[in-house]
Amino acid sequence: MTATLPMLENYPNPIELDRGKLAATIDALDDCAEACTACAEACLGEPDVAELTMCIRTNLDCADVCASAARVLTRWTGYDAAIGRAMLEACATACAVCAAECERHAAKHEHCRICAEACRSCEQSCRDLLATMV
Amino acid sequence: MTATLPMLENYPNPIELDRGKLAATIDALDDCAEACTACAEACLGEPDVAELTMCIRTNLDCADVCASAARVLTRWTGYDAAIGRAMLEACATACAVCAAECERHAAKHEHCRICAEACRSCEQSCRDLLATMV
Amino acid sequence: MTATLPMLENYPNPIELDRGKLAATIDALDDCAEACTACAEACLGEPDVAELTMCIRTNLDCADVCASAARVLTRWTGYDAAIGRAMLEACATACAVCAAECERHAAKHEHCRICAEACRSCEQSCRDLLATMV
Amino acid sequence: MTATLPMLENYPNPIELDRGKLAATIDALDDCAEACTACAEACLGEPDVAELTMCIRTNLDCADVCASAARVLTRWTGYDAAIGRAMLEACATACAVCAAECERHAAKHEHCRICAEACRSCEQSCRDLLATMV
Repeated sequence: MTATLPMLENYPNPIELDRGKLAATIDALDDCAEACTACAEACLGEPDVAELTMCIRTNLDCADVCASAARVLTRWTGYDAAIGRAMLEACATACAVCAAECERHAAKHEHCRICAEACRSCEQSCRDLLATMV
Repeated sequence: MTATLPMLENYPNPIELDRGKLAATIDALDDCAEACTACAEACLGEPDVAELTMCIRTNLDCADVCASAARVLTRWTGYDAAIGRAMLEACATACAVCAAECERHAAKHEHCRICAEACRSCEQSCRDLLATMV
Repeated sequence: MTATLPMLENYPNPIELDRGKLAATIDALDDCAEACTACAEACLGEPDVAELTMCIRTNLDCADVCASAARVLTRWTGYDAAIGRAMLEACATACAVCAAECERHAAKHEHCRICAEACRSCEQSCRDLLATMV
Repeated sequence: MTATLPMLENYPNPIELDRGKLAATIDALDDCAEACTACAEACLGEPDVAELTMCIRTNLDCADVCASAARVLTRWTGYDAAIGRAMLEACATACAVCAAECERHAAKHEHCRICAEACRSCEQSCRDLLATMV
């Protein structure tokens, strides 16, 4: 278990979102960023790396977007929802693009299959959280 | 002068955007991220830090969003505009929110005035680049 | 469970470190970075924020150092141990400094207590991994 | 000109380092991080990408280490030199490793030549700043 939810439960400020859902999304973003960084590294080691350059690019993009989104959401105290919302939208987009690219290589490379799963799961978390923000 | 434009000019892949404009936006993002990180630090050292907590939060958010956007744009080779576009939108939002907050303290704190300028300039660069993507 | 170990287990390249230990250290770094980002945010919301500025600074430093170390270690394929080793040293230092600062506020602020624990645990993981690199 | 020095000149806290040297190092780190991110992208677009995987890895490592070091140095207010010093050491190491790798491809790829220069220049800045910290 990560420290994310225990930390959020001890924020002095009110959070107008469900803390469990917020913590789950932050954890999904951190996990997806890590999986994408690892998938880029694994792709660099494959003999068919020349076929995987698009996959490496989207992995790196998705890792950067998810990592910064996790930080923005960790500072979510409701003061201004605009930045958090924009980052959740950007993440849902990045995860969808990266998952689609990884899925193309999933039959050949297990790391792409696992990474695609992490991206799909993170995309869903982002969309679920967005849906709770009216 | 930074290495950004000379690097972009030596990309082997075509870029469907104007390289000068793209390099200028990347530099604006890097400079804004740096200014926001510095403004957060300066705010932490002020005697009235308790009045500046919102400013510190938006500084940190804006720094994270701009830094990751700079990376995504640096990998812009047109393959899929969706992630880059989403990050430019997120940056324009973050810069606008951060500039507005810093401007509230600009008369009292010179670092907030300089940071607000960097944010406004970066916001404009992002919007200009978005406008060239039909 | 995170995707870190399953990803490492599917790297095509050999890794001369124990993959379980490496994955555990990467997870500890990601968790510590997240806890530190959250602790900085929580400190910003406390009525005694003026007493917590040093804690916020060390939290932000530790978060940045751990996040980049996690990425460097994820690309660990033994080609050149120098960067990974230097980052593990930097992390052990950052975690020790941040833990000591958070511990000063642990009796008053539960988020500082939890964050100090994450830092101590991460520091230990970094030192353990360094010890396996002869 | 970047906003880095004007920002440092308006920090309310004393800095026991020369502000001009500190600002120059921070700018060198930001520029090196950007050049390395761009070099990785350019390498991914080259027909001989399979020969450049080590270069891409070191580029990504160097970019991450320099970016986090720039942030840590931006928060340099002398409270505890240990983290900043460790990150300067890690950066000098990462820049040296990345420069050496890029120099191997400099005759063939202009982006590697420019990137190697940015790394060497950043390495020197880090070492110069370290030398002023007794």
